[in-house]
Amino acid sequence: MADHLIHEMSASVAAAQIRSGSLSCEALMQACLARVVEREPQVGAWQFIDPKRALALAREADLRQPVGPLHGVPIGVKDIIDTADMPTSLGSLIYAKRQPDWDAACVAALRAAGAIVVGKTVSTEFAYFQPGKTRNPHQLLHTPGGSSSGSAAAVADCMVPVALGTQTAASVTRPAAFCGIYGYKASHGEFSLSGIRPFAESLDSLGLLARSVDDISLFRSVLLGRQHPDRQPASGPPRLALCRTSQWALVSPSMQQAVEALVQRCRQAGAVVSELVLPVQFDGLIESQKIIMAYEAARNYVFETTCHPGQLSEAFTVLTDIGRNLGQQDYRQAKDALRLAKRLLYSLVSEVDAWIAPAAIGEAPLATAGTGDPLMSRMWTALKGPSLCMPVSTGEQGLPLGAQLLALPGDDDRLLQVGQWIERMLETP
Amino acid sequence: MADHLIHEMSASVAAAQIRSGSLSCEALMQACLARVVEREPQVGAWQFIDPKRALALAREADLRQPVGPLHGVPIGVKDIIDTADMPTSLGSLIYAKRQPDWDAACVAALRAAGAIVVGKTVSTEFAYFQPGKTRNPHQLLHTPGGSSSGSAAAVADCMVPVALGTQTAASVTRPAAFCGIYGYKASHGEFSLSGIRPFAESLDSLGLLARSVDDISLFRSVLLGRQHPDRQPASGPPRLALCRTSQWALVSPSMQQAVEALVQRCRQAGAVVSELVLPVQFDGLIESQKIIMAYEAARNYVFETTCHPGQLSEAFTVLTDIGRNLGQQDYRQAKDALRLAKRLLYSLVSEVDAWIAPAAIGEAPLATAGTGDPLMSRMWTALKGPSLCMPVSTGEQGLPLGAQLLALPGDDDRLLQVGQWIERMLETP
Repeated sequence: MADHLIHEMSASVAAAQIRSGSLSCEALMQACLARVVEREPQVGAWQFIDPKRALALAREADLRQPVGPLHGVPIGVKDIIDTADMPTSLGSLIYAKRQPDWDAACVAALRAAGAIVVGKTVSTEFAYFQPGKTRNPHQLLHTPGGSSSGSAAAVADCMVPVALGTQTAASVTRPAAFCGIYGYKASHGEFSLSGIRPFAESLDSLGLLARSVDDISLFRSVLLGRQHPDRQPASGPPRLALCRTSQWALVSPSMQQAVEALVQRCRQAGAVVSELVLPVQFDGLIESQKIIMAYEAARNYVFETTCHPGQLSEAFTVLTDIGRNLGQQDYRQAKDALRLAKRLLYSLVSEVDAWIAPAAIGEAPLATAGTGDPLMSRMWTALKGPSLCMPVSTGEQGLPLGAQLLALPGDDDRLLQVGQWIERMLETP
Repeated sequence: MADHLIHEMSASVAAAQIRSGSLSCEALMQACLARVVEREPQVGAWQFIDPKRALALAREADLRQPVGPLHGVPIGVKDIIDTADMPTSLGSLIYAKRQPDWDAACVAALRAAGAIVVGKTVSTEFAYFQPGKTRNPHQLLHTPGGSSSGSAAAVADCMVPVALGTQTAASVTRPAAFCGIYGYKASHGEFSLSGIRPFAESLDSLGLLARSVDDISLFRSVLLGRQHPDRQPASGPPRLALCRTSQWALVSPSMQQAVEALVQRCRQAGAVVSELVLPVQFDGLIESQKIIMAYEAARNYVFETTCHPGQLSEAFTVLTDIGRNLGQQDYRQAKDALRLAKRLLYSLVSEVDAWIAPAAIGEAPLATAGTGDPLMSRMWTALKGPSLCMPVSTGEQGLPLGAQLLALPGDDDRLLQVGQWIERMLETP
């Protein structure tokens, strides 16, 4: 493989080559850092980056036996996730120089498996709406999406093969869709969030941005402390469903076509695809997600809203004001509605392995318009199941379109298995 | 009221006197600090204390209109809860000098309501078993219980009227019982835990240590951001149940008597008290709690176990080793068992307002034997409902005995209402 393609390698392939001795950690890191040097001035994916240190760590890694399945793999870490050796600003002016005393548990687990943190990727303010400097690598006038903006852009632009993200509404799925990569949001509670400032704890989940489903499975197995990377058993065509959701009319024509074309291809490849129509009990769930998010954010950010109100964005201030004015009754009703719908969902999808929905309402809007609408993920995130955003097409403006694959809470392994089946199908001409 | 009794005042009474002008914030703080000076060398409740600063803040408060319902009230904060102006060691050697960049949300909320943080109270290592220096103020050779050791001792010894604690197994209930005070563990998810390092997020809850139920209700209303402190409506005798649990045979004779005597008094005061017998589905729940605690602790403390193993206690290392060796299947089964039992519990207690159980297996053991057994709270904590430990008697060694009042998740208001009814009944000769 020519030198100029090393930075495009997946983590799984690179790690295997490092293990076999056909690739050095240094060469891999050099290639990624060269890409950063070339592209960062335009893309702005990094809040903090220490190329010298990353290179030194890669060289050290070459002198050692592999410590784990990610030996020498460069990664990006969203800047709301604590790192003991790099500042963690949470995308906030208040914490511009904050240096945590520990690695978040997810970072520690990846490092223990040999991964090398290249730097911290740009997050919107506290992983909410106020955007950072990052641009969509496909078209620099457009947003990469948010809040895991830098993680999605860095992975899409081949600066690192994998980056960590988090999602409370659509913060992994939307940037993955806008940047044309895979984005896995884990089931709620699937991984440790220790060392990640909570935004809304009933909704927050860890996520992975990557360019292949294999990489996501590899990182997932490390985060779960599994002794061996999951071997996806060869599986036949999955049982799928298409869920247009009641927001279908708000979805762009090209996104509608992309999702329906994906369904067609799945059918042609042998999958049975039924239709998932959500009953009326699901109608208010987007509102429920908004209520829970505002209520919990308001109570989680009392220090900032009380002691540093002048350093908060208007969007964040508005959200916490709304949350503070909600009563505990509103909050409980929202949680009850979700609990009820979740129970219903189990019976609705008992005959399918996963279901498909649009990952966003359309292509990435202009960066001047913010980070895009989280509409298509709010309900799914609140229902606590895993999701996998998959790049499936491009839209009218030539920007990526993503579909999301969804499953019941805890069905993450099956979701990724189905995701891999679809990935291979899409790669087949 | 004579000067030497000011430090014995409840927060509610002191706050009311401050509002009416009959007590100054300075006099209240002086009295509490004098008590600290007198007793701290023996009791060892504080990990960090800054009397000068506390006094300066009290004097400032006297120059201002009351900012909220806790204006001028001194509080203690468990040392696993972040404070922007005081170190937060988490009871760990690794973090002996750690200075957080923020106040935990609960601290920020109490400060915004006027409370003055006197200092940080001793916690066991990461709120697990390795004890700190604190002794039981009733008998100094005995443990105050853990992990909220310093919070319980400081409140029991009248150094502060109220202190914050947390509970994952029995860390509020047990020290409250051993120290003879009220200890309220909130329903899981009731309050923000932002700024508190998670131990096991499916179990962790915030708690309050106090000398009266009124104080607990007052602090609860502030933490919930309620505009007005809850006025407990005058309520008639509650419908109660006695739950001996399948651990009854392990409970000391004096504790058995204390709990049954409480039930008798409730009956005499007009309460209907039935018996709550837990069906066989509850038998393994203590084991389930242990599995969840170990599994989540292991994944939450990867940084410490990987990078600082030499600075961890043996107890903590053993727990995280156990947790690392558990599979995701064990963890899910434990969660499923709890979910099933919780559903069952709703039907079992549909006719009662709250139920009564022992708060610990007996009196506080000698400090040389550790912080005591969390046995009597593990299951209830895992079932996610609130609990209120109430001092009801003393045992063979003259140390306090506590009963706990329990309710369904979310029934915190009703629990405290019943607790207040029992408190008043016990105060009636």
